[in-house]
Amino acid sequence: MTEALTQKRRSGGRAGNRERRGGAVFRQMPWRLPKNTDRPVEPLDGEGVAAIHNGAMRILEEIGIAFLNEEALALFRQAGCRVDGQVVRMDRDWVMEMVSRAPASFTLTPRNPDRRLVIGEGHILFGNVSSPPSYFDLELGRKVSGTRAQCADLLRLTQHFNCIHFAGGYPVEPVEIHPSVRHLDVLFDKLTLTDKVMHAYSLGRERVEDVMEMVRIAGGLTEEEFQATPRMYTNINSTSPLKHDHPMIDGCLRCVRRGQAVIVTPFTLAGAMAPVTMAGAVTLSIAEALSAIALFQFVRPGAPSVIGTFTSNVDMKSGAPAFGTPEYIRATQMTGQMARFYGLPLRASGVCAANVPDGQAMWETSNSLWSAMQSGTNIVYHAAGWLEGGLVASPEKFVMDCEVIQMLQRYLEPDITATTPDDIAFEAIREVGHDGHYFGIQHTQDRYETAFYQPFVSDWRNFEAWAADGEVWTAERAHRLFKEIIAHFEPPPMEAAIREELEAFVARRKAEGGAPTDF
Amino acid sequence: MTEALTQKRRSGGRAGNRERRGGAVFRQMPWRLPKNTDRPVEPLDGEGVAAIHNGAMRILEEIGIAFLNEEALALFRQAGCRVDGQVVRMDRDWVMEMVSRAPASFTLTPRNPDRRLVIGEGHILFGNVSSPPSYFDLELGRKVSGTRAQCADLLRLTQHFNCIHFAGGYPVEPVEIHPSVRHLDVLFDKLTLTDKVMHAYSLGRERVEDVMEMVRIAGGLTEEEFQATPRMYTNINSTSPLKHDHPMIDGCLRCVRRGQAVIVTPFTLAGAMAPVTMAGAVTLSIAEALSAIALFQFVRPGAPSVIGTFTSNVDMKSGAPAFGTPEYIRATQMTGQMARFYGLPLRASGVCAANVPDGQAMWETSNSLWSAMQSGTNIVYHAAGWLEGGLVASPEKFVMDCEVIQMLQRYLEPDITATTPDDIAFEAIREVGHDGHYFGIQHTQDRYETAFYQPFVSDWRNFEAWAADGEVWTAERAHRLFKEIIAHFEPPPMEAAIREELEAFVARRKAEGGAPTDF
Repeated sequence: MTEALTQKRRSGGRAGNRERRGGAVFRQMPWRLPKNTDRPVEPLDGEGVAAIHNGAMRILEEIGIAFLNEEALALFRQAGCRVDGQVVRMDRDWVMEMVSRAPASFTLTPRNPDRRLVIGEGHILFGNVSSPPSYFDLELGRKVSGTRAQCADLLRLTQHFNCIHFAGGYPVEPVEIHPSVRHLDVLFDKLTLTDKVMHAYSLGRERVEDVMEMVRIAGGLTEEEFQATPRMYTNINSTSPLKHDHPMIDGCLRCVRRGQAVIVTPFTLAGAMAPVTMAGAVTLSIAEALSAIALFQFVRPGAPSVIGTFTSNVDMKSGAPAFGTPEYIRATQMTGQMARFYGLPLRASGVCAANVPDGQAMWETSNSLWSAMQSGTNIVYHAAGWLEGGLVASPEKFVMDCEVIQMLQRYLEPDITATTPDDIAFEAIREVGHDGHYFGIQHTQDRYETAFYQPFVSDWRNFEAWAADGEVWTAERAHRLFKEIIAHFEPPPMEAAIREELEAFVARRKAEGGAPTDF
Repeated sequence: MTEALTQKRRSGGRAGNRERRGGAVFRQMPWRLPKNTDRPVEPLDGEGVAAIHNGAMRILEEIGIAFLNEEALALFRQAGCRVDGQVVRMDRDWVMEMVSRAPASFTLTPRNPDRRLVIGEGHILFGNVSSPPSYFDLELGRKVSGTRAQCADLLRLTQHFNCIHFAGGYPVEPVEIHPSVRHLDVLFDKLTLTDKVMHAYSLGRERVEDVMEMVRIAGGLTEEEFQATPRMYTNINSTSPLKHDHPMIDGCLRCVRRGQAVIVTPFTLAGAMAPVTMAGAVTLSIAEALSAIALFQFVRPGAPSVIGTFTSNVDMKSGAPAFGTPEYIRATQMTGQMARFYGLPLRASGVCAANVPDGQAMWETSNSLWSAMQSGTNIVYHAAGWLEGGLVASPEKFVMDCEVIQMLQRYLEPDITATTPDDIAFEAIREVGHDGHYFGIQHTQDRYETAFYQPFVSDWRNFEAWAADGEVWTAERAHRLFKEIIAHFEPPPMEAAIREELEAFVARRKAEGGAPTDF
C-alpha cells in the first residue's frame, strides 16, 4: 500500500524525466466504436442453449417472478399474465413474443452527437466504474468514503480517455452530498465535465425524471426531440432470486415511456442468490431479465433494451463475491449465447475482487474483459476503475484499465491481420535477405509510426533504464498520469445559456427538496 | 520495488495469520493434461491462410534459408534441394511432403511415467520460464546474475505446481557455474528436484548428448528403451532473418536420431528481425520453421516436431521487444491457423515486457496466455516466472502466473458449463423461491466444495479484512508463498543407485572437461 509514497520519496527529482515522457498530452488512440469480429466462444451446444432456455421459461411459467410494483402488476394483468399477489407467471409464448419486439441494435445520442453510440451490430463499448461507495488512491493510501471532488476527478478521466465510450453511474458515490440532492449535483458535474452518454439511477421517480430533464436541457432539446431517439439509459438489477423491486421497475418504465434505453442486469451470485451451478445461475439470470424486458416491450414495443449479465461465484471461504474467475468467464460466455438466441444486445463488466491496483487486480480484470470479448458483449460496464468487487473506485486502476481496454480496441483493428502482398512483404524479405535487419528499410519506414500499439502507462524499457528512472511500479506510474490528466483537463465546450439553464434547474429542484430519501 | 520490504516491516507479526491461511500445503488443483475445447480465434480467412502459405513457400523456393551447418547442407543436397553456398532453396512440393510426415501428436515420457505428456490432441500444457540470465525477487529488491541456488529454487517451484507440466530450459542461468560444466550441474538438479519432462539446449554436441545420457540414466533406461519413445526434447530458435545456426541444427539432428522431440521457434520480432507487418513476420517465421522441420523429417520420417511462434513487435520508441501486445496476440492466433494447416503441434509462450511482478506484468502475461488459448497452442513455454522480455526470472511472478494458469486449467473443465437437469437446478430454484438464499440448501451443500475455483495467492477478502491483515499486495503474498513452498519442498523420489550413477556421470564428464566453450 505504501509503495507509492515510499517510491515518491526515493525517486525524488528523477520523476521529472518520467513526467516529460508521459505528459497529459500523451498519445492515445482516437475515439472510435470498435467492432468485435472474433467468433464468440460458445461452451454450450444447441442442447445446452435449449436446456437453459427451457429452464428459464419454466421458471417464468411455473415459479414466477415477484414484482414489488403495483403498476407493473396491473400491466401484467392487462397482458393476460397470471398475477398471484406480487408473483407474476407468464407463458413462454407471450414472453418470446414480447422479447422479439426488442431491437437487435439501437443508438444512444448524448449532448455531443459525435459521441453517438451504436449498441449492437457487433460493437463492443466500454464505460467507467459505477457506484462504488468508497475511494482509494495511492496518495491517500487508504479507503475513504467518496467525495464530490473524487467523483469529478473520475469523471475527468472518463472524458479524457477516448477508449471510454460512456459515463455509467457515479464513478464513486459522493457520500458527503445529501442523497436527496446528490443526483442533481453529480449530474451537473457529469453533464459539464463530459459529453458522453450517461445514465440515470432508477431510484425513485424524482431522480429518473430529473436526470432525463437535465440530459434534455444539456442537449438543447425539446421534449419531442428528446423522445425521438434514445439519449441515455438506465441500468437496473433484479433482487435475486426472482424479484424486481419497486424503484427499479418504476425508473425503467419512466425511461421507456420517454423513449430512453434500459439495461436489465440480474446480480446472480452462484451459491448465494443463485444456484451453485453456473447453468443454474445463468438460467435464473435469464428468467429475471426476460421478465422485465417482456414488460417493457409490452408497454412500448421496440423499446431499446439490453440484457445484462452479472453472474459470478462467491469465495466459498469468506462468502465474498469473486470476479474474473473461471466460472465467471464461462457464465459470461454462456449468457452471450443466450443473448444471441433472444436477439438482444448484451451487457457484461470489467471486474475484479482485488483491493488494490496490483497483479491480482489486473489478471482478474483481464479475465473479465476477455470474457466480454469472447461472449460478444456490446456494453462493458465498470471497465475502468473498479476494485474490491465494486466497493472501491481507484483512479490508478482507471488509468491501468484504460491501457488494457485500448489494447483490446487496437486488437480489433483489421489492419493487424491483413494479408495483402504489402503485408506478406515478400519483396522486403528478399531485400533484407539473410544478414540484414528491418529497422531501416523503406517497408518499415513507411509503416512504423502506426504499425504497433503505443502504450501510455506500460513501461517497455529494459530493467536498467526503468531502474535508473526510479524503479516505478505500474500503479505509481498510473497515479502520476492520473495527476497529470487532472492538471491538464479541459472540459468539453458547453454553451453558456445551456449551462445556466442546468444551474437554474439544479437550484430549483434543490429548493423543492430534491428527491425523497425514505425508501 | 521497495513495496515488499516496507510491508514486511510494517506488517510484522500479523504475517503469521496470513501464513497459516496459505501454507505450503495449500490446496492446488491436481496434475492433469487439460484439453482446450474452445474453437480457436481465427482472424484469417482461407485466402489469408493461402497468402501466408504461398509467401512462406516463395521464400523457401526463391530466397532460401541459410544453414550454417555442413551436415544439414549435405542432407539438403542429398534430398535434391538447391544448395548455393550456405543458402538452401527447396520446392514447396518437397517441403509439404516432408512436413506431412510429422505426427499430429506424440508423447513425452520423463523418468516418472505418471508425468507423461501428450503433445497435440487438443491439449494445452504449460512450462516454466527458460533461460533468463538474471534473477529478481522482492527480498533482494534488485536484478542480479542467476545462481545455482536460485535456479534450484525455481526448479522446486516447477516441481511443486501441478499446473506446470514440464521443465523447459534453465529457469534462470546459473551464471556462476562455468559454461563448460553448467549443463551437468543444472541437469543433475533438474533430474533430482523434478520428475517432469525436460529439455536439452542445442548448444554443441557435448551438451545435447550429455543431457540425453542423463535423462536416460535418470529413467533407468537402456539406449534401446530411451530411443523407443520420446523422453525429452530440444527447442531451437532460428537466427532471423532466414538463418539456422550450426549448434541449433546439430542439436536437433542428434535428438531426432535418438528418437527425441524438437521444437523449432523462430524469433521474429516485427520491425527488427522481421517485417514490420504481422503477416510478413508470421510468413517469415513459418518459412524458417518449416525449412528445419522438413530437414528433420527427411532424416527421420515421423520425428516428433513442433512449430513454435515467438512473433511480436518492438517498442518503436526504445527498440525493446514488447510482449502480450495486440500485435502479439493476433500473430499467435495467425500462427495457430497455419500450424493447423500444416498439421503440426504448436508452441507459444506466456510472456511480458514488465520488469517487476506488478499490474503491467499480469495484463501482458494474461494477454499472452489467452492468445495461447485462442490459437490452439499445445505447449506454452515461459508460462511461469518470466519478466523483462525474458531477461529476468522472478519467483513471485512464478507463483502469480501459476494462479492464472490454474484458472485457465479450471476454465477448461467441462463441468462448469454442464446443463444437465441437476445443473439447471429448476427444483432448487423452486425450493428457494423469491425470498430465500442458496447458501444452506442441499443442492449447494452437495456441490460447494468443488463447485468453484479456489485460489492460493489471490486475496478475495474485503478491503477491511485485507487491511487488518497487513495490506499485503499480490507480489508480496507471492513472495511469502514462494518461501513457504521452498521451506516445505520434498524432492520426488529417486532410487539411490540411479542417483549415484548420475553423480558418477557428472563427475566423469567434469573430469573430461565438460563441453567446449569456444563457439
